[in-house]
Amino acid sequence: MDIDILKVSERLKLDESDIKKAFERKIISFDEYDNKKYLLFKKKLRHIERGTVLFLNNNMDIVMGYPKIRRAMMLYPTLKNYFIDKIVVEEKLDGYNVRIAKIDNGVVAITRGGRICPFTTKKALRFLNTNILDDFPDLMLCGEMIGLNNPYVPHYYPEVDNVLIEKKDKNNKIIENLGFYIFDVRHRETNKPLSITEKDEILEKYGLPYVKPIGVFDKENVEHIKKIILKLNEEKREGIVLKDPDMLINPIKYTTHYTQCNDLSVAFRYVYDLGIDFMFSRLVREGYQSFEFNEDEKEMGERAKNIGKSILYPMVDTIKNISKGEFITEDFEIYLDSEEDLNEFLAYLKKLHIAYTIKEKQKLENGMHKVKIGRMYNSTNDKIKSHLDGNLW
Amino acid sequence: MDIDILKVSERLKLDESDIKKAFERKIISFDEYDNKKYLLFKKKLRHIERGTVLFLNNNMDIVMGYPKIRRAMMLYPTLKNYFIDKIVVEEKLDGYNVRIAKIDNGVVAITRGGRICPFTTKKALRFLNTNILDDFPDLMLCGEMIGLNNPYVPHYYPEVDNVLIEKKDKNNKIIENLGFYIFDVRHRETNKPLSITEKDEILEKYGLPYVKPIGVFDKENVEHIKKIILKLNEEKREGIVLKDPDMLINPIKYTTHYTQCNDLSVAFRYVYDLGIDFMFSRLVREGYQSFEFNEDEKEMGERAKNIGKSILYPMVDTIKNISKGEFITEDFEIYLDSEEDLNEFLAYLKKLHIAYTIKEKQKLENGMHKVKIGRMYNSTNDKIKSHLDGNLW
Repeated sequence: MDIDILKVSERLKLDESDIKKAFERKIISFDEYDNKKYLLFKKKLRHIERGTVLFLNNNMDIVMGYPKIRRAMMLYPTLKNYFIDKIVVEEKLDGYNVRIAKIDNGVVAITRGGRICPFTTKKALRFLNTNILDDFPDLMLCGEMIGLNNPYVPHYYPEVDNVLIEKKDKNNKIIENLGFYIFDVRHRETNKPLSITEKDEILEKYGLPYVKPIGVFDKENVEHIKKIILKLNEEKREGIVLKDPDMLINPIKYTTHYTQCNDLSVAFRYVYDLGIDFMFSRLVREGYQSFEFNEDEKEMGERAKNIGKSILYPMVDTIKNISKGEFITEDFEIYLDSEEDLNEFLAYLKKLHIAYTIKEKQKLENGMHKVKIGRMYNSTNDKIKSHLDGNLW
Repeated sequence: MDIDILKVSERLKLDESDIKKAFERKIISFDEYDNKKYLLFKKKLRHIERGTVLFLNNNMDIVMGYPKIRRAMMLYPTLKNYFIDKIVVEEKLDGYNVRIAKIDNGVVAITRGGRICPFTTKKALRFLNTNILDDFPDLMLCGEMIGLNNPYVPHYYPEVDNVLIEKKDKNNKIIENLGFYIFDVRHRETNKPLSITEKDEILEKYGLPYVKPIGVFDKENVEHIKKIILKLNEEKREGIVLKDPDMLINPIKYTTHYTQCNDLSVAFRYVYDLGIDFMFSRLVREGYQSFEFNEDEKEMGERAKNIGKSILYPMVDTIKNISKGEFITEDFEIYLDSEEDLNEFLAYLKKLHIAYTIKEKQKLENGMHKVKIGRMYNSTNDKIKSHLDGNLW
């Protein structure tokens, strides 16, 4: 692959020597999708965000990486210190972050890490009217792909049930749970966001699905924001993103007890594969939240029990399953339009070094394919098997 | 410090080049206590255990490091695979590991890490009749210093209350909770242990305190060992050490639910200072134990609640205390014979780069000093303060 380092350097305003080092140290990779060749940044390098994509086309189009959203551990006094006056509160959805852009007349969906995902690209094209990108080709639509039927973060959302096949017996209809909600519209080369009003107006105009604001609050009004968190927690939703109305300040996030526990249960199901830093951070958040919400003995007891169960139950469940001789996997059920789409997606997983196994495959009467993919967690299977066989720690 | 590398090499059967590298890479340190100069191994190097001490005296006396005791995650089938036929079960005490040896007519108490600890040396001399080391100078007494009044692992054991000062009003008497129990007698140069019978006989003969066997079991009799674990758990004791009667095989250990939770609560009290690996390993043990003990829903719920509380409560407690402006410390109350002993011990902590503060100091009517030392956990204090002040993650 011949890459003109000088041109890349001018385009990204990065020193040539930095780019050369980044190639050597493998934080810039080359990839290609549908005849679009591109470079992607696997880590943040100087001012270039992780996940930034530079297309090797005539324009050398850039899609900047989605910036890291920092977290408030305490609502008070963080919001008061951090924001200017008003805060727009939007719901944070639990799926995966996607940027959608139009490059050389083709729409692509780029993951957080900077890959054009074939599954996501095709679904996005089905869910979204992309006229907006014809009119404003320098914009990107940043949003969350959510629902049970995706290959990354399967999490059921009642609002994204799509009926794929109607049946006489209603209980038998085939439903895909998948949807896309835009939360930011940004200039793809600079990452400059539209203000909340501009964003909502343009998305309304083009009829695009977006995360609706929960409300606009004075930054001092932490009590109201706490109430929102409690309500979202009751409804088993992930949390909130807090934004400046003009997007002059980077958004920050805050999550519910439910989400912390849900994350823990995934982590302890695949106990030796998911990072222990991941587990630790969830536990620490629970400490600050319990403190900030001024919990009484009963509320703390309830929170503690939920934490303990989220840790113990999935772990014991995994040990039990492995003791019965099962090989445990994390399963994703997705719907694809054709055999070709399936093969393309499996090749994509392979390229990303994701170990998987096909657990079920079914051709539906409308020609679509329903596939259950099992992601393999080898450390968890191997280590637990070893201990069950009587090997010492 | 002039050290004869050739002599060290011959004495330890280590290549000279290994020793030189070990000095350069600082895994061998030099230290001195009471005119005894010594080298200590901070990590295991080839066949030399971590914590091994080589005295720079005429004999170049060696006290080998106490070998690492591995852990059974599952009692079955680990015990069956690991042992020959019989298993001696001894209680595992929750204190700190000490080796006691006589070098150049002086008795020293060496910590796991390979330091002669002045506090421990003096207490050991008071608790133990060391005639045994006059008669067998090549033996070392390996044991656990336990009780509330030690500067490392303060944990109350009812059996080690020593009355220091009697008072008319019984409730006012001054009691030191501290004791030493021997669990192994080994040749200090080779680490070769006496068999259980030899050990118990010689310790009885010299009237020395030792960990009494709970029983001798067939290695297939896991059910009985499980019952012991449940009983120890009820009594809030740490766990067991399993040994071959002839000590032909290295001992292994297994701990109670109580201990896992107790460890977790210490770890989450000093949440940003105690390693997250430490926390993770305790959680994983709980998973295997719940599975192996075949717990029903009620027992699992109880275990989960205990785990959750051990995590949440101390963490919230720490956050609360820091929010009130406190600087949190881990406090140890110890009794020392004199001001000189106190100063010597404080100099020792300083040498080990342990940050501490003196919280209370009191001279008792018998001339002893009661001192409360607070170990400072700076990361925990700084990070929590930072989040409480509204800084982002």
